[in-house]
Amino acid sequence: MMTALPSTTAGAPRRVLGIDPGLVCTGFGVVEIEGRHLHYVASGTIRTTSGVAQGDLPGRLKIIFEGVREVIARYEPTEAAAEIVFVNVNPQSTLLLGQARGAALTALVTAGLPVAEYTALQMKKSVVGHGLAAKDQVQAMVARLLNLPGLPGKDAADALGVAITHAHAGGSFAAMAQATDLNRRTHAQFKGGRTY
Amino acid sequence: MMTALPSTTAGAPRRVLGIDPGLVCTGFGVVEIEGRHLHYVASGTIRTTSGVAQGDLPGRLKIIFEGVREVIARYEPTEAAAEIVFVNVNPQSTLLLGQARGAALTALVTAGLPVAEYTALQMKKSVVGHGLAAKDQVQAMVARLLNLPGLPGKDAADALGVAITHAHAGGSFAAMAQATDLNRRTHAQFKGGRTY
Repeated sequence: MMTALPSTTAGAPRRVLGIDPGLVCTGFGVVEIEGRHLHYVASGTIRTTSGVAQGDLPGRLKIIFEGVREVIARYEPTEAAAEIVFVNVNPQSTLLLGQARGAALTALVTAGLPVAEYTALQMKKSVVGHGLAAKDQVQAMVARLLNLPGLPGKDAADALGVAITHAHAGGSFAAMAQATDLNRRTHAQFKGGRTY
Repeated sequence: MMTALPSTTAGAPRRVLGIDPGLVCTGFGVVEIEGRHLHYVASGTIRTTSGVAQGDLPGRLKIIFEGVREVIARYEPTEAAAEIVFVNVNPQSTLLLGQARGAALTALVTAGLPVAEYTALQMKKSVVGHGLAAKDQVQAMVARLLNLPGLPGKDAADALGVAITHAHAGGSFAAMAQATDLNRRTHAQFKGGRTY
C-alpha cells in the first residue's frame, strides 16, 4: 500500500468535483483520479444561512454560485458531477430546490467544466452497492473508499459519493468500489478539507 | 406629446431589465425610466432549442445564463425584475422551470443588479388593471404603454410587463398605467429590439 504518490506523474490527473445541491446547504467534494487510484482532495458545504435574509432568494442563489466558483478556483477540477435532486412532495420546495440546483449547475458549466448527472440511486449503488443505503452508510463507505480519518458531513459525503460515482463510471474504474488499495494522497495544502 | 427626448438629462436614467424565465424560452425586456416617462429600449427571447441536445440540462442553463449576461452587457440596465414562476401540476416540470429560473436569477444577481420579484398576478394588475388578464391583453397593453409599433411576442411582453410593474412600484410611477403621454424614445441602436 502506498502512503503517498509522487506529485508529478505522466499526464495531468483528472479531478472530479461532486456537487449535492440544496438551497440551504450545498455539499461539495473533490477527488483526484490517478490510474486506478482515487484520492481525497477536499470537501465541505456552502451554506446560505448567514449574511442574507431568508426570503432573499436571489441573494442565496448568489452565495451558491459564488461558493461553487470559489471551490473551482481553489481546487481546479477538470470535470464535475451533480446529484439529480428528488422531487419534493411540496411543489414550492421543489421550485426552490430547482432554483438552487440551477445556480450550482450554472456555476459549473459557465466555468467550462463538463457536467455529468447522477441520481441518488445511482450514487448509492456505486458507493454502497445497493440503492436503498441510508445516509450514514454513504458516509461510512465514502470515508472507507477515500481512506478518510473520520466521517464527512452528510451533504459533503453525498457530494463525494457523486464524484466517486463519476470516477467509477469512467470505465477503468468499474471495479473501484471493490478495490481495497484506495488511498488518500497527502495534500499539505488541502489538509482536512475546507468548509464554507 | 413628445416624439423624442434629449439624449442627455439631469441624472442617469434608471433602466429596468425584466425577465420572464423558462427552460425553453426566456423572455427579456428593457425599459428606461426618465422622470414620469417610460421608454422602450429592447426586448426579445433567449431560446435553448438549438445548438444543444434537448436532454442536456447543464448546456441549456449555460445558454440562459450567458444570454441574460449578453443582454446586460448590451443594454446596461441599472436594476432587474423577474417574474415569479408558477408551480406546474407536473413536479418534474416544476423542477426544470426552477433550474431555468435559477440560472437567469444567478446571471442577474452576480452581475451586481438588484433583483425584484413579481408574480404574474401583480404584473397583470399593474399593466392591464386586473389579475385575470389573458396573454394577448398583456401584449396589447405593453405595446400601448410603450408606444410600440406592433405587438411584442408573448414571452417578451411578459418580461416588459414585469419591467413596467417594477417601474410603477417605484413610487412616482404609481399612476403610470393611466398615463397617456408615454412615448418610445428613438434609440437608433436599439431599433426593433433584438431576438436571441
